[in-house]
Formats: sequence, structure tokens, C-alpha cells
Amino acid sequence: MNQAFFNMSVEAKLMELGIQLPPPPPAVAAYEPWMRTGNLILTSGQLPWKNGELAFSGKCGAEITEDQGYQAARQCAINAISQLKAAAGDLDRVRQIVKVDGYVHTAPGFRGHPQVLNGASELFRSVFGERGRHARLAVGIDEMPLNAAVQICVTAEIEDYPIS
Amino acid sequence: MNQAFFNMSVEAKLMELGIQLPPPPPAVAAYEPWMRTGNLILTSGQLPWKNGELAFSGKCGAEITEDQGYQAARQCAINAISQLKAAAGDLDRVRQIVKVDGYVHTAPGFRGHPQVLNGASELFRSVFGERGRHARLAVGIDEMPLNAAVQICVTAEIEDYPIS
Amino acid sequence: MNQAFFNMSVEAKLMELGIQLPPPPPAVAAYEPWMRTGNLILTSGQLPWKNGELAFSGKCGAEITEDQGYQAARQCAINAISQLKAAAGDLDRVRQIVKVDGYVHTAPGFRGHPQVLNGASELFRSVFGERGRHARLAVGIDEMPLNAAVQICVTAEIEDYPIS
Repeated sequence: MNQAFFNMSVEAKLMELGIQLPPPPPAVAAYEPWMRTGNLILTSGQLPWKNGELAFSGKCGAEITEDQGYQAARQCAINAISQLKAAAGDLDRVRQIVKVDGYVHTAPGFRGHPQVLNGASELFRSVFGERGRHARLAVGIDEMPLNAAVQICVTAEIEDYPIS
Repeated sequence: MNQAFFNMSVEAKLMELGIQLPPPPPAVAAYEPWMRTGNLILTSGQLPWKNGELAFSGKCGAEITEDQGYQAARQCAINAISQLKAAAGDLDRVRQIVKVDGYVHTAPGFRGHPQVLNGASELFRSVFGERGRHARLAVGIDEMPLNAAVQICVTAEIEDYPIS
Repeated sequence: MNQAFFNMSVEAKLMELGIQLPPPPPAVAAYEPWMRTGNLILTSGQLPWKNGELAFSGKCGAEITEDQGYQAARQCAINAISQLKAAAGDLDRVRQIVKVDGYVHTAPGFRGHPQVLNGASELFRSVFGERGRHARLAVGIDEMPLNAAVQICVTAEIEDYPIS
């Protein structure tokens, strides 16, 4: 990453990476897509929605390859960033991606959770730089809602006030 | 919901809904049923205990139907509310149900996680109104402690001081 | 526990228990081993690493007995304490172990999650005393990263400033 990229706003970095932020996906049941408590935003579980459809369905190690799992996790992260924008108003007000809880839909014997979830982690690092560093949980899930390949929840810290 | 219901205390709403709050279920091992940090209460995993017994055992999609799973999630939420009362002293001091982490004990191929967990989410909304809105995680679990049908953890924000 | 033990520093208690704190295990992928937000430390999922190797691999109820699962959870907790030391600088600055999210790698039919995770919970209580009390989640996981027997995430509250 060069210095010019480093100094870009989060929105400009997204554009540079060729990512057009989708509208924040709505909740699929009786809950909210994110909530704020103090300076923390907690997102609901983000699925790999793309243009209103689940872009990656099935289990990693069966219908979904590790590479596809990586792309699924990346898509979950794109949707999480859209939720954070809705929550913070401006992505430059995101002070830190604090934690990513990662759930991988796994077929028996699949062990590539870390590689799959790097699809989310590496995007957060690319988009938010140092502010994209985060702790992470990675577990396998036998039956995922809507048969999604990956699901992530994000805990992020935001600024008290807009950056002046 | 009519205006009179809207203005009721949380305890009065519970009574109106025919819910008698049980004593907070004790932890089943070497941990606490809830902890406070700052203005946040974090509950331990709540199981569908009722009168000292697990009211719903088995896997959703096998021994447990989706409707029974909904009732199981509702019972978990009743127990969580009892923990919040123990934690906050008074349920009217609960400022917000922030997040519900929902774990559904799933048989192979079960996909009704959202419907099952609505049993908890809808109760929180009925009892706490706007303060009952929350973010949510929903995943399936292959082997649940004590064979419980559902488990939820609740993150809630409480007031600094009693409401005067 | 006698009064002398009660008054010991956390490091002295570890020594008394015969526990030599290892260096904090590095993350196995593109994330951080812990993050701080406000007064909270959130650790990444801690695995039962010992001397650079996973000390307990496989599923509880199959390759791993309940007793070995207990030891695995204890080892996860030792690694978590090492992360907390790195985060807080001094373990006496840990004000409270707030929550332990426990994930047990389970073979079909295994129900001993609470006993297994007590290996972590009891160590936190021994080492931190009242400050070691915590809420807990316990679920079974069908496919765990690296085939680890247990994984835990810890949420802990630390002091604002060093204790003088």
C-alpha cells in the first residue's frame, strides 16, 4: 500500500478496490441489522448477500471450495461495512474494527476455517488500515441459516463525534 | 399494542402477557448466570428451563418441531429476563436489549433458525417495546449442552441510576 | 484457599499453582490475538497450544475424553491469561474476567460441555479469585479449526491506570 492509498478516506479506498457498497441488507426476521451501545456497534450475523441473493450457499469442503469460502467471507465483510456506514453515518468515523466472530458452514473434515475467514479479515485491513485490525473467533457450523456458506458478526468502535 | 400497554411498566406488561417471571435459573457449572461491565449486562447461555426442568430437549427438525423450537426460544428469553431483573434490580432500568446470540440445536438439513429464534426476539419486543430491539446471531449447533433445543446469550444496556 | 494465597499477586498465584505463563500464542491468520476497546479486552479464540503444538486434538467423546477436554480447556485459559498479560501489562490490572465463550469440539452424543469448560472456569477462579467470576457460553462444534479439542474467547475488564 502506498502513502496516497494510506491517506485516502474509507470510501475512496473502497472505490479504489472496485467495491461498490450495497445498501445494508435488511434483517431476515424480528431483529435489527445492527445496534449501538456507547461507542460500540454490534452487527447482526452478516450473510454473503449480493444483489438480494445469497451469493454462496452450501458447506465449505462440499459444494463450496476454500477459495469460494474466502469470497463468501469477503462478501459478508462488504455487507458488514455497509451496516457500519448506516450505523456511523460516515465510515471515517469507524475508529476500530474490534472483533470479527466468524462462522463457517463446514462439511465433515473441513479444516480451512482460517483461510476462509481471511476473506473478511484481509478486506477489513485493506479498507480500514490499522483501524481494521481485529480479534477473531473461528468455528465450524453444521447447519447454517438459509444454507449460507459463511456468517460473520462484527464489533466495531466508532468516534463520539464526526472527525473535524 | 395500544397506548395503555405502551405506557405500562415492564413488570405490568409481563403480567398482561400472562408471564410469571421464574427465579433466575442458577448456573449449571463453575460460572455466574450474568456479569456486569460498565452499563452492560452479559448473560450466560440461557436454556429453556421451566420449573427446574428443561422444557424442550432434542434437535429442531427431529424431536422438536419448528413451533416447539419457537416456544423453547421464548422460554430461554423468559429466563434471560429473569436474569436481567436480578442484574438491574428493576426491569424498567433495562435501557436496551442490545444483542441476542441464538444457538439452535439442529438436526441435519434444518433451516428454520430464524423462525425458532423469533420466539425470543418477539418476546423481547413485546415486553420491552422499542427498548427490546436488538441485533442477533443465529447459528445451528450439532451437540448442545444437556441436549437443550435452544440456547441464547443476551447483551443488555442498563441505566446508571434507578429511574426517578 | 487461605488468606495468604488470597492476598497474593496474580503472578504469585500462578507460580504457586505451578503454572509458567507461556508467551502469548500468535494469531494463526490475518487477525490480532486480542483487541482493546475502552476498558474491555476481547481475546481471539484461544486454542490449547503448548510449546508451539496443539496439546489436545480431536473430538470430545471420541479421541478426547472428558478429563482430557477439561485439561484442554485449562490450557486454553492459560493462553488467554498470557494474552491478558500482554494486553494489560500487569495481570493485577485485570479487574474482572467478564465472560468466557466456550466451544467444545464434540463427537455425536457428547454432553459433557459443562465439565470440559470447567477446566477454564476453575482456573480463572483459582488465579483471579473474585475477579475470576464470569458469565459463560457453552456450545458444541462439529468441525473446529486445526482440529483443536476446545476453543475459548475471553472478555475481560481492566483498570484505567496501573494500581499504585
